[in-house]
Amino acid sequence: MNEFDTIKNFFSWSETGTGLEKSVGDDCAILNVNNDASVVTSMDTLVEGIHFTKDTKPEDIAYKALAVNLSDIAAMGANPRFFTLSLTIPEINPSWLQKFSESLKALSNSFNVRLIGGDTTKGPLNVSISIFGEVKKGLALQRSGAMAGDLIFISGELGDAAMAYKGLKINDSTLLRLNRPSPRIELGQRLTPVATSCIDISDGLYQDLGHILSMSRVGCKIDLEKLPMSDDVKDYVDSSSNWCVPFAGGDDYELCFTAPKSMRNKVEDISSELNLPLTCIGEITKDIKFTVKGGSVEECYSYQHF
Amino acid sequence: MNEFDTIKNFFSWSETGTGLEKSVGDDCAILNVNNDASVVTSMDTLVEGIHFTKDTKPEDIAYKALAVNLSDIAAMGANPRFFTLSLTIPEINPSWLQKFSESLKALSNSFNVRLIGGDTTKGPLNVSISIFGEVKKGLALQRSGAMAGDLIFISGELGDAAMAYKGLKINDSTLLRLNRPSPRIELGQRLTPVATSCIDISDGLYQDLGHILSMSRVGCKIDLEKLPMSDDVKDYVDSSSNWCVPFAGGDDYELCFTAPKSMRNKVEDISSELNLPLTCIGEITKDIKFTVKGGSVEECYSYQHF
Repeated sequence: MNEFDTIKNFFSWSETGTGLEKSVGDDCAILNVNNDASVVTSMDTLVEGIHFTKDTKPEDIAYKALAVNLSDIAAMGANPRFFTLSLTIPEINPSWLQKFSESLKALSNSFNVRLIGGDTTKGPLNVSISIFGEVKKGLALQRSGAMAGDLIFISGELGDAAMAYKGLKINDSTLLRLNRPSPRIELGQRLTPVATSCIDISDGLYQDLGHILSMSRVGCKIDLEKLPMSDDVKDYVDSSSNWCVPFAGGDDYELCFTAPKSMRNKVEDISSELNLPLTCIGEITKDIKFTVKGGSVEECYSYQHF
Repeated sequence: MNEFDTIKNFFSWSETGTGLEKSVGDDCAILNVNNDASVVTSMDTLVEGIHFTKDTKPEDIAYKALAVNLSDIAAMGANPRFFTLSLTIPEINPSWLQKFSESLKALSNSFNVRLIGGDTTKGPLNVSISIFGEVKKGLALQRSGAMAGDLIFISGELGDAAMAYKGLKINDSTLLRLNRPSPRIELGQRLTPVATSCIDISDGLYQDLGHILSMSRVGCKIDLEKLPMSDDVKDYVDSSSNWCVPFAGGDDYELCFTAPKSMRNKVEDISSELNLPLTCIGEITKDIKFTVKGGSVEECYSYQHF
């Protein structure tokens, strides 16, 4: 049983209803608070030894804890507003806390999102953030809207974070992608009138695109040769013939989204305006299958928390 | 440096502003989402070895994790609506998860509050809940409204949970109060037009009433003889002459609130209607001092997380 089975088996009893548009099973829940706006909310936790190593710097832990939550807001096309922080720490180390807090503050300022509360407790290091964003009612991007014929796009590049995490290539640029992912907030917002579905890639393209497929009840055909990759990742794939790093590595925090073919020009415009590559890697099919060409991915499996 | 210093030193940079009425420093943050209603939100975490022992049952952990969050909503006089759960567990144990999930579901159903998302990760047991409630704009109970001359009231009884936690008396009734605190949601809602300030007692009366005093810039005079106590706690205080258990023990999750003297009859009516003792233990003073009569409390200190 993996994380998703656990959620499905034990924590999926809630039904949508008054004031709740979307519940367990997307990047964020959607709360309808008035006639014009929805609040989207998500909660993501980083645990020492699982999501970061014991020697990860406090400033990187703080950055990533907030960035992965911002990434969920980005995947909904929403505007981040507030967050709460639950920080479990083994001891009060003022120098550690100072660096953690400064980094958190800097990132929160740069996205204009405010810390409004939380909890501080003693115990093994565990950083949990609960985040709130807002989006015009009806415009939130969800995992469930992909249609046969839609094109599948990826922002940025895939695989660098996994190269660093797995110790395959540790250099400044792969470590930066592992420790300091860029939340694609502006992209998400620009995509609300364009994309039919969207998710952020935290557990790897294979697994996360899989969520779009299952929620939308569709399949896909993708071409590995089209995956956007840095030179480091390209070199690794060329020398190893192993596609798992970009295909299923995880920790990318790029957006994977679908859009009708008629929107291709619009997607290209957004890419130019944001100076961010948006690469078409394949298309959605009516046939409920995950079809991959351009290489073998049978040995790949995505990140499993357990 | 304790928990409160940590929050003050490292996590109090946020200022109130558009859409944010109240931030770090109350039981919940208050978000104004439209002209009529505010969303209140809070986040509380339970850690194994700190908030519960290794042999605590999963059903009790789940109950308490949600109950302490509901208690924060109660202290704001709000109506609980939604929550997210971040569950960090060392392994997937279906029987443990089944009991945890059933207990969480039962309590959430009884307060009509819905689980809408969260995160499941691997690591040392850590249960973090982020909760959302709503309250009519301007009616949220805060810590900052106590005025000189106001009476100070306590719901229920104090000290049983601490008796069990400290191993001073472990029986069915003290364990029930430790593991299954009653969130005073209905009381909080009834108090919105009556109370001038309110807090839930998680860290002990001394510390939590202290928060009301410092936020309201007032002092208090309380009479230990008036503290509401069960026979177990009374017997312990009588035999030991030690007032620390009811005065500073913590984990009570009762409400401590202040109300003008003119509201005394109204408070008594609410007490009768809810069949819940609401005991006046003293009054707020202009003089910024915490004055205690009826016994010695010098050796008492409240629960410190670090």
